[in-house]
Amino acid sequence: MYIVCAREGGRINGQLSNTVFQVASEPPIVSVCINRKNVTHGMIERSGRFSVSVLDITAPFTLISLFGFRHGGQIDKFAGTPYQSSPGGLPIVTVSTNAFIEAKVTGSVEAVTHTVFLGKVTDMGSLGQERSMTYDHYRTVLKGLTPKDAPTYTPAGSMR
Amino acid sequence: MYIVCAREGGRINGQLSNTVFQVASEPPIVSVCINRKNVTHGMIERSGRFSVSVLDITAPFTLISLFGFRHGGQIDKFAGTPYQSSPGGLPIVTVSTNAFIEAKVTGSVEAVTHTVFLGKVTDMGSLGQERSMTYDHYRTVLKGLTPKDAPTYTPAGSMR
Repeated sequence: MYIVCAREGGRINGQLSNTVFQVASEPPIVSVCINRKNVTHGMIERSGRFSVSVLDITAPFTLISLFGFRHGGQIDKFAGTPYQSSPGGLPIVTVSTNAFIEAKVTGSVEAVTHTVFLGKVTDMGSLGQERSMTYDHYRTVLKGLTPKDAPTYTPAGSMR
Repeated sequence: MYIVCAREGGRINGQLSNTVFQVASEPPIVSVCINRKNVTHGMIERSGRFSVSVLDITAPFTLISLFGFRHGGQIDKFAGTPYQSSPGGLPIVTVSTNAFIEAKVTGSVEAVTHTVFLGKVTDMGSLGQERSMTYDHYRTVLKGLTPKDAPTYTPAGSMR
């Protein structure tokens, strides 16, 4: 489970994601899959950059809910969230996370409702020692639901 | 852990993958990340279709090794492997797998050494009840290495 963030001018935003992957190692390239309706989508598209904060298993449901079920157009998700800036100026969530990645977009491909952005890793680092939170942990231990804008959403909320 | 397969004319081939993801749900779209040097890459590129067989935790190392560490240009990986054809004629591995997906390529994006192919799901089905094999299980329980052509390969073979 991840929080994907972007900066556009003075504005920062971020959103929960279960769809962040390494797609090449030389050079390191990661992909993120973002719903076209989300605020973060346009910010990544226009700024050409994104960051990924890796959630650990201590992440409380309040944090997950804030970034996963609230819309960045309505609230400032970072108003009460501890964060720091990556070397490139992108927000990195520093609570209940164990690592971050900063990336520059190198390509993208449309998936009807979503866009898969590829980004070359420009910086990365460790933020803690706790184990990463898997989607399986989120669904089976935290009994978390899947947001309507997620790539894996189903109306019944069933695991998929 | 997955086996991604393709058919081109009368030829079939497949390869191990740890990089198969759902990227949209309406319509269902999956992505696979394939090394440009692999036989399966060209076959997907030219045929515009691929299948995914989902490995379960009973998958023996011999099967993983055959599809993950042997080159389709040198051997017929299906010579001794039980498989069936999907409705669209793509090979589906039927041993130690619990599900399959058949997809039609709708887009792709380059990642230097790899290509991320997106495919609209054209068919899918269950093949068994065993739990899926995760990459974590492969690395920590089976002590499996990462093939040199994998998106997550590192020279030291360390988890990444």
